[in-house]
Amino acid sequence: MVPHLKTALTGPLQDLEKRFLDNSTTIEQWFRAQWREHVPPFYGSVDLRNSGYKLAPVDTNLFPGGFNNLNADFLPLCVQAAQSAIERICPNAASILLIPENHTRNMFYLQNVARLASILGHTGLRVRIGSLLPEITEPTPIELPNGDSLLLEPLVRRGKRLGVEGADPCAILLNNDLSAGVPEILKGLEGQWVIPPLHAGWATRRKSQHFAAYDFVAGKFADMLGIDPWLINPYFATCGEINFHERTGEECLASQVDGLLTRIRKKYAEYGVDEKPFVIVKADAGTYGMGVMTVHDAADVVGLNRRQRNKMSVIKEGLQVSEVIIQEGVSTVETVSGGVAEPVVYMIDHYVVGGFYRVNSDRGRDENLNAPGMHFEPLAFQSPCSMPDCKQPPDSPPNRFYAYGVIGRLALLAASVEIEQTAPAQVQEAGATA
Amino acid sequence: MVPHLKTALTGPLQDLEKRFLDNSTTIEQWFRAQWREHVPPFYGSVDLRNSGYKLAPVDTNLFPGGFNNLNADFLPLCVQAAQSAIERICPNAASILLIPENHTRNMFYLQNVARLASILGHTGLRVRIGSLLPEITEPTPIELPNGDSLLLEPLVRRGKRLGVEGADPCAILLNNDLSAGVPEILKGLEGQWVIPPLHAGWATRRKSQHFAAYDFVAGKFADMLGIDPWLINPYFATCGEINFHERTGEECLASQVDGLLTRIRKKYAEYGVDEKPFVIVKADAGTYGMGVMTVHDAADVVGLNRRQRNKMSVIKEGLQVSEVIIQEGVSTVETVSGGVAEPVVYMIDHYVVGGFYRVNSDRGRDENLNAPGMHFEPLAFQSPCSMPDCKQPPDSPPNRFYAYGVIGRLALLAASVEIEQTAPAQVQEAGATA
Repeated sequence: MVPHLKTALTGPLQDLEKRFLDNSTTIEQWFRAQWREHVPPFYGSVDLRNSGYKLAPVDTNLFPGGFNNLNADFLPLCVQAAQSAIERICPNAASILLIPENHTRNMFYLQNVARLASILGHTGLRVRIGSLLPEITEPTPIELPNGDSLLLEPLVRRGKRLGVEGADPCAILLNNDLSAGVPEILKGLEGQWVIPPLHAGWATRRKSQHFAAYDFVAGKFADMLGIDPWLINPYFATCGEINFHERTGEECLASQVDGLLTRIRKKYAEYGVDEKPFVIVKADAGTYGMGVMTVHDAADVVGLNRRQRNKMSVIKEGLQVSEVIIQEGVSTVETVSGGVAEPVVYMIDHYVVGGFYRVNSDRGRDENLNAPGMHFEPLAFQSPCSMPDCKQPPDSPPNRFYAYGVIGRLALLAASVEIEQTAPAQVQEAGATA
Repeated sequence: MVPHLKTALTGPLQDLEKRFLDNSTTIEQWFRAQWREHVPPFYGSVDLRNSGYKLAPVDTNLFPGGFNNLNADFLPLCVQAAQSAIERICPNAASILLIPENHTRNMFYLQNVARLASILGHTGLRVRIGSLLPEITEPTPIELPNGDSLLLEPLVRRGKRLGVEGADPCAILLNNDLSAGVPEILKGLEGQWVIPPLHAGWATRRKSQHFAAYDFVAGKFADMLGIDPWLINPYFATCGEINFHERTGEECLASQVDGLLTRIRKKYAEYGVDEKPFVIVKADAGTYGMGVMTVHDAADVVGLNRRQRNKMSVIKEGLQVSEVIIQEGVSTVETVSGGVAEPVVYMIDHYVVGGFYRVNSDRGRDENLNAPGMHFEPLAFQSPCSMPDCKQPPDSPPNRFYAYGVIGRLALLAASVEIEQTAPAQVQEAGATA
């Protein structure tokens, strides 16, 4: 179904990636030590940009929705990693409730849910899928394009426990990012593990907190390898009081954009990068590629027209944007049959379990590829990310993907730190049990 | 290189295997609970026999020597499982010393060592290979048929630590089964992990202890599934005072053989098995398929001729046999191009990471296939053992291999119990550190 192209980028491997390869033993040791200090999230996916001179994460998703895009050959890796996660988080769980996003017609997403359910089932959990949608009032089977089917069931709250009719699961796995806030039915649960914890949802999560944690983690990693952290870390800044409709906060935005562009320009000069710097302005709590804008000049954010302001002000679930993150733009040099390609790395526990390219032929190399309504072709990674091979040329797929797996895990580690730092007091004490 | 046949057995799946499939969630939960009680060995391989009506382990190896025979596509599973094992056993190890068997010309075995070294390297360990062979007095590179090379180095003992020139490793992984006893150079080490612990070597290990532990484990498993434990467990008995040269202990052997054959005959009658029962007589501490005999009648073990007595009395490293195990013979119904085939399941930590068929065209279906000097063709499993698929027919490869993975893990669990039970007092206190 998905063509197994070698990699979207066939040019020679850059210095940075070569550095990772040469130091893979040290890097793996370093990660091993980090995971003793920080608890990995149950799962996560990281969007990367590879500009040739720079390889950096641009978004980290703690409720990944594209397991269906992974190479099916690597599913055993998912099962093994999920076993390991379950053993760590809820070893005596016999059943799990999977709560997906509120989509009933997005077949791509529903195939992701089916695959997740299958992975969980193989670890020895009875899986039920409980929907937050009010219109799901009875068990509703959904036929998937690949012939599988999925049973969405209405959630049933009994006292401080959540389940579906006839099932009182030990654990709840969220594949819903809680953009609309934490639903009442999920609040105040006791004696059930909620994975990831509620505060990892977009109701409380902020991109800027994540990238602050990434700053810290990438700094330590760069130190250890003796490299400039900028090579793996996009600059960022925030503005906290924006109202695009009322045009307040424009000056803050313009000045932050200008500041970032100046810093990037300096780095471009230092590394001889002959490109026009740009930044991406995004909703700090946003997701789904909504509320995202590419900006080349501070003047561009002053006096936005109505269409631009509308676009920026509303994100998923109709929420208003008031905080934004301004992130250094990292262009991508990867293309697949003329379309711009962005690698997405998938992880379960602290293991890289696969990845795919998001290929979008309608977009430029300095634009966001995960845009609503935009068509993208997933192209599964051909090789796993855990097996660099020093006997193969440095630009062979296992070696290229290894570098992606390193940066993906670095962003996942940042997410661990972020979740620790943002945990409400009682969660910090009680661990993952809600 | 290795043809990826679907499975050696293409007939319909038997009742027992179907029972495993139907209960896979319960089985996985049961294993999860068991691994909380018992520490899995670092690695292991299990030889299975599938007679159609019965699926049972016949040998469990705690120093597996055929990693080179596994499907290379599943190597990422090995790396992930080894990461997990290292995190559990010696999380802060940065380097490891691999001690192989004393072979310098067995290229099949040396390719196994190379593959093991590569797996360990990918987990983030610096790997050195230290040889126990006295003739290895300086670093000795060995070219392998696949173009790889291996560096065997002389072991260097410094006080209570063992290493090689220029390296003081954190951990020592034995791929040597210690048939010749525990070498002085391995005794009294301090501050280094020795994996598996020394008492898991054949210097102290007994097949009968393993199968006693398997009896216990298989009994619990059969109870949980509501099946007759005989369906997964070969009967066995022992004789402790045999001297094949001096012809002492023959009566004990004959009477045990007779007793076992009687018990097997009863079970055959119960299940309507129309076969001639047989037993396998093996050295209780033996390995490498040496000192093994197929017996159909108690009279066969009385008055053995000189050749037979010689064959039975000496095992690996020239050791004398005095204790034997008499094990119910399980014939194999699996064949590959006319040769008799026996599945071998490979595990790292508690994860099944692959397997292969040992195919031997010179041997009968009631004979030992792992015989010295015998040619066998490895045939790698095409699918992993962790992904049964209820949507595929029950005899499809993932489903057949799942059953093999279940019995393989059951034998590995028995090995955990065995290692606990046979641990010397100080090891029981100090854990895995030697």
